[in-house]
Amino acid sequence: MSIKKVLQCVDKNMDGLVKDLCMLIHQPSVSAKNQGIKKCASLVKNTLKNSGIGAEILSIKNYPPIVYGEVKSKKNPNKTLLFYNHYDVQPVEPIELWNEDPFSGIVKGNRIYGRGSSDDKGELITRIKAVESFLKETGGVPCNIKFVIEGEEEIGSPHIEHYLKKYRNKFSCDGVIWEFGHVDSKNRPIIDLGMKGLLYVELSVSESIMDAHSSLAVLIKNPAWRLVYALKTLRDSSGKILIKNWYDDVVPLGKSDIKILKSFPFNEREFKKEFGIEEFLGKKSGLAAKKSLASEPTCNIAGIISGYTGEGAKTVLPAEARVKVDFRLVPNMNPKKQLMRLKHHLKEKGFEDIKIKVYHGEAAARTSPKHPFVSDVISATRQSFGKYILSVSSAGTGPMHAFTKILNAPVIAVGSTYVFSRIHSPNEFTRIDLLKKATKCICIIMDNFSSSD
Amino acid sequence: MSIKKVLQCVDKNMDGLVKDLCMLIHQPSVSAKNQGIKKCASLVKNTLKNSGIGAEILSIKNYPPIVYGEVKSKKNPNKTLLFYNHYDVQPVEPIELWNEDPFSGIVKGNRIYGRGSSDDKGELITRIKAVESFLKETGGVPCNIKFVIEGEEEIGSPHIEHYLKKYRNKFSCDGVIWEFGHVDSKNRPIIDLGMKGLLYVELSVSESIMDAHSSLAVLIKNPAWRLVYALKTLRDSSGKILIKNWYDDVVPLGKSDIKILKSFPFNEREFKKEFGIEEFLGKKSGLAAKKSLASEPTCNIAGIISGYTGEGAKTVLPAEARVKVDFRLVPNMNPKKQLMRLKHHLKEKGFEDIKIKVYHGEAAARTSPKHPFVSDVISATRQSFGKYILSVSSAGTGPMHAFTKILNAPVIAVGSTYVFSRIHSPNEFTRIDLLKKATKCICIIMDNFSSSD
Repeated sequence: MSIKKVLQCVDKNMDGLVKDLCMLIHQPSVSAKNQGIKKCASLVKNTLKNSGIGAEILSIKNYPPIVYGEVKSKKNPNKTLLFYNHYDVQPVEPIELWNEDPFSGIVKGNRIYGRGSSDDKGELITRIKAVESFLKETGGVPCNIKFVIEGEEEIGSPHIEHYLKKYRNKFSCDGVIWEFGHVDSKNRPIIDLGMKGLLYVELSVSESIMDAHSSLAVLIKNPAWRLVYALKTLRDSSGKILIKNWYDDVVPLGKSDIKILKSFPFNEREFKKEFGIEEFLGKKSGLAAKKSLASEPTCNIAGIISGYTGEGAKTVLPAEARVKVDFRLVPNMNPKKQLMRLKHHLKEKGFEDIKIKVYHGEAAARTSPKHPFVSDVISATRQSFGKYILSVSSAGTGPMHAFTKILNAPVIAVGSTYVFSRIHSPNEFTRIDLLKKATKCICIIMDNFSSSD
Repeated sequence: MSIKKVLQCVDKNMDGLVKDLCMLIHQPSVSAKNQGIKKCASLVKNTLKNSGIGAEILSIKNYPPIVYGEVKSKKNPNKTLLFYNHYDVQPVEPIELWNEDPFSGIVKGNRIYGRGSSDDKGELITRIKAVESFLKETGGVPCNIKFVIEGEEEIGSPHIEHYLKKYRNKFSCDGVIWEFGHVDSKNRPIIDLGMKGLLYVELSVSESIMDAHSSLAVLIKNPAWRLVYALKTLRDSSGKILIKNWYDDVVPLGKSDIKILKSFPFNEREFKKEFGIEEFLGKKSGLAAKKSLASEPTCNIAGIISGYTGEGAKTVLPAEARVKVDFRLVPNMNPKKQLMRLKHHLKEKGFEDIKIKVYHGEAAARTSPKHPFVSDVISATRQSFGKYILSVSSAGTGPMHAFTKILNAPVIAVGSTYVFSRIHSPNEFTRIDLLKKATKCICIIMDNFSSSD
């Protein structure tokens, strides 16, 4: 059977994988600063080509380009697997906390250091090398392969939907492997079947055109008080959102979701110790806590500011107050509809003077655990890593819904990112052992996927 | 009558007043930075001496010294008038907005520019020159004169009470002229008979030992929400404070206070235009608005901060939230008692986890409009300025209560500080015409005070 040889090929070519990954790390590609984006796109295109993958640069307007890769399968031309990744990275600041140049790509034992080593150049290289191994060993791929590698993930993927809509046909596929997949502290890969959505807004209110001396608080209204009164109407102390109809579209967890959650390992004690807390919001624990992580909408104050916030005392009556609020959404909640509900709520409660600025609106996505693609991934993960954890949904948010909706395909996150690999932080690294296992995992997914229904 | 000659002497010696004021301005004395404090105290002492006033430096521990001045009266050794002033000034920053060196003391037409030109070196010099004019012209003073000139007023007078208590006998007097007195845009001097008190606290709460990703808001409590819920219990949207027994000790305005308020000119339209507001808190207007300014307690959010407050969106769950709240107090409210009421309230409402840091606690002070000292000042002000405005109480706060309580004497604010003279701001100035009028006013107050009951 050819898959064995393909996996042996992965083993033999790990030096090449490490070399190519270091080359990608050497090329800065910080989307937040538009640093090296085009150069990196071109380098990624060449990396694909050198691995035998057809590659081209796709551009819309002045948006950072997408690198598109494709290999057609002779064996099974009717099934297509798409890898979604990104070639951009987070800024490197604070640079003084790095032990090496962030773009050095230095190998130390089992680790490769550098910005993007895990997120997401490390994940990308495992997928490229999996395809390369098939091509080398068998002269082809078991199913059609597509790569969509964007350059704006670290700034919130503002144009991924534009690309998906424009290239809907080019990108059409039967399954998507997400850009990352976590591996926990016990080396168990987490297979995530979904992500939450997000509505991120800033509410601001001003009551006068300039700060005043606080002795005038008898006459001039205070915008910080106004925000307090408005916020109080949004959410109660148990975390329940008080906006009318907020939960109307929420679909409850299915039986199979709950079954998965029940066996999901969540170490409450470790978690509480990490954050120095004694009890969870609403005294949740056990299954209730896990259900919340996977499927509870939230209304979170991410930031609030008004007036004087420095050392000591200043008797000021501020002119303006601002609060950033992020609402996590769950499947079937539409960010635009929820925004309308928020606007309606504020109006109805008499806060029509509060301005709303929308930063993000992204729907949740979830793939049914009953989808055959899930079995393909589970069995591949068990084979390559020896164990796995299945997760109904990450508590986090990504542009997953754009893929499930526009491409109408199941999306699963599985990969090589060690949970303590310091992504987005100084001294980010990736683990070579996990890169190898993840590459093999991708090979087996391709093989399984080709032959499943 | 000798007072005429004394006033003529003031006219003749304006050059000397301007020269001495500029000399005081030349000497930096920024208490917030401990810059030039001792040098300035010494300069002030010498200025007093050069004007014929007995002077000495008083020190407690390492507190900035007080300059004490004294002239005994042969004519009326039974009545003592005390001038309270300060030789320290506000920081000069932002220095780039000054047209001249802040310590240059440059004269341009009717104006003298420089930090402290109005606040408070300008006020101080009028009092010194008033006494000097009496000494020059009559060889004595109509009543005993005392000067208490402190060096920490601009940082909240943290030790004035210590000095007043230690030197209670030395400072004993029958009337105090306050360190400032405002002159409005129509050149009307405002005679203030009181100041509000202040309780300034910072409330802080933390729910975890570090910031978390906001996806964890389903489990980790958010300190910003906690503050919102706590704040909501302190005050309603009309401005009414909801803390139990908060208003218990408030003494209502007397008939004579209301009479004064009725004739107090308050241009609501001008005020609203200045701040760009359409209506006052609680739709107050007319006498109600004036009553509030003079005698309504407040609970003001002076500053609030938690989480990410920069540009754009960050999905964070903050570890800590802080709010600065200032409560203005009115006569008979005891800051310590009110603090206990606040603490008790938070505990009763279940917010015992909220930490309280106390920055300031100062009681309100008010001198009865029926006190004969008030008539002395009114008639002097009318004579020197041609007009005056009587005010029950400033809406602001100062350490006035320490004087009324410890020295058991009436305190009145009257002086030369033009309301638009940019005190605490770049390009602070004083007006020479107002310095002259205020000096004459002080002369007449001394004369009236000596002969009144």
